[in-house]
Amino acid sequence: MTAELSLLADVGGTNTRVALAAGGVIDRASVRRFANADHAGLGAVLARFLDEAGRPACAAACIAVAGPVEDGIARLTNRDWIIDPAELARATGIGRVGVLNDLQAQGHALDRLNPSDLDQVIGVRASRARTGARLVVGVGTGFNSTAVIAGPGGSVVTASETGHTSLPLRTDDDVRLARHIEAAHHGFAGVEDVLSGRGLERLYAWHAAEAGRADRAPAQAIMAAMDSGGDALVEATGRHFVRLLGAVAGDLALSYLPFSGLFLIGGVARAFGPHLGRFGFAEAFADKGRFGPFMDQFPVFLVEDDYAALAGCAAYLATA
Amino acid sequence: MTAELSLLADVGGTNTRVALAAGGVIDRASVRRFANADHAGLGAVLARFLDEAGRPACAAACIAVAGPVEDGIARLTNRDWIIDPAELARATGIGRVGVLNDLQAQGHALDRLNPSDLDQVIGVRASRARTGARLVVGVGTGFNSTAVIAGPGGSVVTASETGHTSLPLRTDDDVRLARHIEAAHHGFAGVEDVLSGRGLERLYAWHAAEAGRADRAPAQAIMAAMDSGGDALVEATGRHFVRLLGAVAGDLALSYLPFSGLFLIGGVARAFGPHLGRFGFAEAFADKGRFGPFMDQFPVFLVEDDYAALAGCAAYLATA
Repeated sequence: MTAELSLLADVGGTNTRVALAAGGVIDRASVRRFANADHAGLGAVLARFLDEAGRPACAAACIAVAGPVEDGIARLTNRDWIIDPAELARATGIGRVGVLNDLQAQGHALDRLNPSDLDQVIGVRASRARTGARLVVGVGTGFNSTAVIAGPGGSVVTASETGHTSLPLRTDDDVRLARHIEAAHHGFAGVEDVLSGRGLERLYAWHAAEAGRADRAPAQAIMAAMDSGGDALVEATGRHFVRLLGAVAGDLALSYLPFSGLFLIGGVARAFGPHLGRFGFAEAFADKGRFGPFMDQFPVFLVEDDYAALAGCAAYLATA
Repeated sequence: MTAELSLLADVGGTNTRVALAAGGVIDRASVRRFANADHAGLGAVLARFLDEAGRPACAAACIAVAGPVEDGIARLTNRDWIIDPAELARATGIGRVGVLNDLQAQGHALDRLNPSDLDQVIGVRASRARTGARLVVGVGTGFNSTAVIAGPGGSVVTASETGHTSLPLRTDDDVRLARHIEAAHHGFAGVEDVLSGRGLERLYAWHAAEAGRADRAPAQAIMAAMDSGGDALVEATGRHFVRLLGAVAGDLALSYLPFSGLFLIGGVARAFGPHLGRFGFAEAFADKGRFGPFMDQFPVFLVEDDYAALAGCAAYLATA
């Protein structure tokens, strides 16, 4: 008897990755990447993948989408794709199709991460055995978080829009930055306006303007310069970004009490991995006045596994 | 056959209310209030209540405590009371004793509230049928929130410390207020430092100082003056408090997506009930830039039922 096959997809803003899983485990050799721009919709992407894979018989499919999911239907806003389970079932011939927000998929993946895919950013002082909540904080194209909370019938993976909450302001720099975002953008300084790929570019341009310069750079170039070191403007930008990330992560930890771990994911978070220590992430995380000592109950990890959303889809199908 | 009796208690910082429930419904005639200062611990309070009630046979007990609960044991920090189920079982002879944080108890009470105990503060524009999360936001002696989220085996009621997250700062007034709190208190301006009974007194004193005056007043006097109207300092304090409450409630709505309702509870929230409209709560709640229109999916209610924590204990025993 062979393990039951399922179809997994991770739909990002630009690319979609598709894979097969056997018995709930991703077949890494099967992973393929498709440019969304080359396809009319996700149904076409999945049909092409299945054709090229020799039409394997899949019992179920699960799709992670970088966009809001309402009543089981997702929207990929930048492409006008509607991702509807009923439509995908018709396009693929697969009877059971689930659609998840990509961050929620990452939440479902937590139990399947290999220890080698986790970097510990902050350890906990006391090693009390706890069965607490876990929190996934994603910093990439956008910012969002999802909590995984133990419930009477299994884990609950929450939906959220924390990227659009108020940016916490501590220093005069923060206040001036927020005023600039309010004036130049949409009248409100939210977390994602700074803590995202585009936010990093905005923060760099703001630090340049504060220094009387007009420098601009794409996020990848800023991170490359940060890895090389030595550029004062890049260093100031990185330090500010990491301090705000620490402050926001600390607020989220107080909101969800992730005694079993706060997991940073996403391309921007991963790119900042080598710089979290020197730019004071841990200090900013714990900078909560008399609640500072309370903060060392939350271990913080950086997730290095780029396949976690697909793994989360497999985990979801195995338990749903 | 008579309905099974259970013992309920709501332990506040100053008083403890105790009641009996029959078949999961509170017997309102049985409710008694005890001053904590007159008793060595909760066991003594409950033993006295049971003695005075003629030693009814209770199958179970549930205690709501205004303090953190860890591994099923609560601490009432201001009195050094440890509220331990095993100890209460010995003191009362009741075999099954549960201990909840009082805000979580309020979460369990949501399904049992009478419509007459709810004032709608913000209605929703679209009447889409949704089965979303619910959020309880408590403003009283302290500030905290709890989310009630549907899970595979029933609702999950989350624990949180949102009162200690960063106070959101929008205006120059907010920034000056935060600097004052940082300097005068514990180096950090958290939500509870303003949005609580003591926070209201602090905000009033700060507005007085800004006007070059040294006025101070207890929270009850401030609220009485607000109800009478006409005092400029009290009006400025109330308007500022409500704007910050709206901003914080909006951030919490974005964090927990309570499509099935955000419920304001607690003595300070109730006292502000008549003033939420005129001081712009709804406007501050929706003041999230391009996410402003998103905010009108969250109905906001004020809970008038002072027995909600006891009702939540009864609900908890009925489902646990």
